[in-house]
This record gives sequence, structure tokens and C-alpha cells, in this order.
Amino acid sequence: MRVMGVDPGLTRCGLGVIDASSSRTVRLVAYRTASTPAGQTTDRRLLQIAEAVGQWIELYQPDAVAIERVFARRDVDTVAGTMQVSGVAMVEAARRGVEVALHTPTEVKAAVTGDGRAGKEQVSRMVMRLLRLEDKPRPADAADALALAICHAWRPLALSPLAEAATPAQKAWVEASRAATKRARQGWVTV
Amino acid sequence: MRVMGVDPGLTRCGLGVIDASSSRTVRLVAYRTASTPAGQTTDRRLLQIAEAVGQWIELYQPDAVAIERVFARRDVDTVAGTMQVSGVAMVEAARRGVEVALHTPTEVKAAVTGDGRAGKEQVSRMVMRLLRLEDKPRPADAADALALAICHAWRPLALSPLAEAATPAQKAWVEASRAATKRARQGWVTV
Repeated sequence: MRVMGVDPGLTRCGLGVIDASSSRTVRLVAYRTASTPAGQTTDRRLLQIAEAVGQWIELYQPDAVAIERVFARRDVDTVAGTMQVSGVAMVEAARRGVEVALHTPTEVKAAVTGDGRAGKEQVSRMVMRLLRLEDKPRPADAADALALAICHAWRPLALSPLAEAATPAQKAWVEASRAATKRARQGWVTV
Repeated sequence: MRVMGVDPGLTRCGLGVIDASSSRTVRLVAYRTASTPAGQTTDRRLLQIAEAVGQWIELYQPDAVAIERVFARRDVDTVAGTMQVSGVAMVEAARRGVEVALHTPTEVKAAVTGDGRAGKEQVSRMVMRLLRLEDKPRPADAADALALAICHAWRPLALSPLAEAATPAQKAWVEASRAATKRARQGWVTV
């Protein structure tokens, strides 16, 4: 299964593509960030990101696009751009008939490190280890996009009957996912 | 000058197209709402709205697309979808080389009614009167989209040397616009 992760951001949008085998092995395909200058108008910046996302979907033909679920109560100054980018990325995937999945930061951290409250550094380190890279993916937005992709690739397995054999990371993911669903039902999650 | 207004919303997105002459006369071209069912996934709903916006831009060839500026502190439950739709609409315009402008609800109300705190009913009534319609445009989202388009069409005049001859509504618009700019500098405006 091939998954493209998108860490939405107006200044830097992280993109990461991985292949995952049935044995839970993940392999790096590519990563990049789509950067847009603050001096440009928002519509031009969003268009550049839309084109970057669209081109990568066509180039790498992922089975699914995993996008960070943005919370409305996060940092108010950046949340608007982040939400707009997530919406734009969703449309680029939907337009090409590619499945879209949203994962919360907590789910992603739990899936990759086993700890839903892991720091950025720890996530980068685990992404490097899981993909057998010699260096941490830079910038951090790219590492986050790869973590999102890994989180999504591992999800079906974590929720399948094979869950008995799940790793601590996958068990933590299931718990984080359940907690997120509960919060969503309580009206906390807005995307 | 032809302007297309977009009142962003995931359930109902209002679209309204007007022609404005140099004498400040405005004429209705068309209006509609793009509705999407709550049962569908967000990416499919955003795609439907993107396609509706894109089709109308191609059909009516506006000189500018005026979109409501979304405030992060508005109703938290709906703001995410609204922001995503506004971002998607911006991309559809930018992709076709059409100018994008954002106007706050206060600016729009002031431009159309002379009162930045006017109610929805008052805005609908003024839109009907200004466009010489026999009935109020329904639903309200369509009326809001037309008000956005009128607000944008009248803007250059209100800010030009002709401002001396401006109507009370246009003077209120200038004041609301200045207040919005001030709030934006203070970090209140996030889009």
C-alpha cells in the first residue's frame, strides 16, 4: 500500500510518500516541503500548494492521502491557513479519486513512537529509524508528513484481528484513536 | 465590472454574480447555492463546492471573486468547514487568473446598508432593492454572496477621489474597512 502524508501549512506544507508491506515494513518513496513566500497573496500561496499536492499525487499514485486533522482551538494565528491548506489538499485528492483520511497529531505520535505526547524530535527519530534513513528528514514538516503516512498505513492492521499481535505503538494508536473519536462525539473536533 | 461573491459554507455555499457600472448601478447576473449533504465525507463535499465555484467562474467570467473573510473566533463548530471552503474557492479563482478579494461581514453590511451591524434581513432587503429584484434572494447565503459582490464593486469608488460624493453607506464602508485593517494589525484577523 502506498500512502502520501500531508502536514498542512501555508508557509511550509510537508509531503511524504511511503510504501507499506503486509508485514508492517515501511519504505521511503519520497518527501519534500512545498514552501510559499509570506509576501504573496493567500490565494496564490494556496494555489501553489494545491499544484504541488496534485503533482505529487499524479507522480506517485498513492492509494490514500493522509492529512493532519486540524483542531480549531490550536494556535489562532496559524490555524486559518492550516485549515485552508488541509481543505485544498483534500480537494486535490478527491478530484483524482484518491481516498482521504484525517489523523490527529496524537494518533500519529502514538502510531510512530508509542506515546501520543511524544515530542517532534522523537517523532523525527522514529521516522528515520522506521524508514531506515541515514539522517532525520528535514525540515520537521516533511518528517511529520512521513509519520502521518506511516500512521495511516498501520491503521488497518492495528484495527484488524491481527491486533492481538500489535506492537505497543499500535496499541497506543488504537487508544489515541478511540479517545479522538470520543472527543469528536463531544464536539471538540471540528474538522 | 463583473464580480462574483462567495459566501463560504460546507452545507450551503452562496454564489452571486453582479455587473456594476461606473455610475454605481448594479445589476443581477445570477445567483445560486452549492449545497452538499452532511452524510458525505468532507473531501467529497469540498470537491463538489470547488467544482461549482470553478464552473461559475468559467461560465460568468468575473473580473474579481469576493469571498467572506472568515474570523477564527467565530462559531467554533462551523469555522473549520467555512475556512476550508474559503481556501478552496480562492484556489479555483487563482487557478483561472481571477483576482481574489476578502471582505469582512462588517464591511459588507456597511457597504450595502450603511450599518456595519445590520441584520441578515436588512442585508437581504437592501440587496433586493439595489438589484431591483421582485423578491429577496433565497436562501440567505445567496443574498450574502450578492452583498459581497456589491461590496467589492463599490470599494474602489469609495476609496477614490470621488469619495467626497460617497453615500453614507460608502462612508460607513471606509470606516469599517479601516477598523478591520486595524484589527488585522493587532492580530485579530487570521485569514
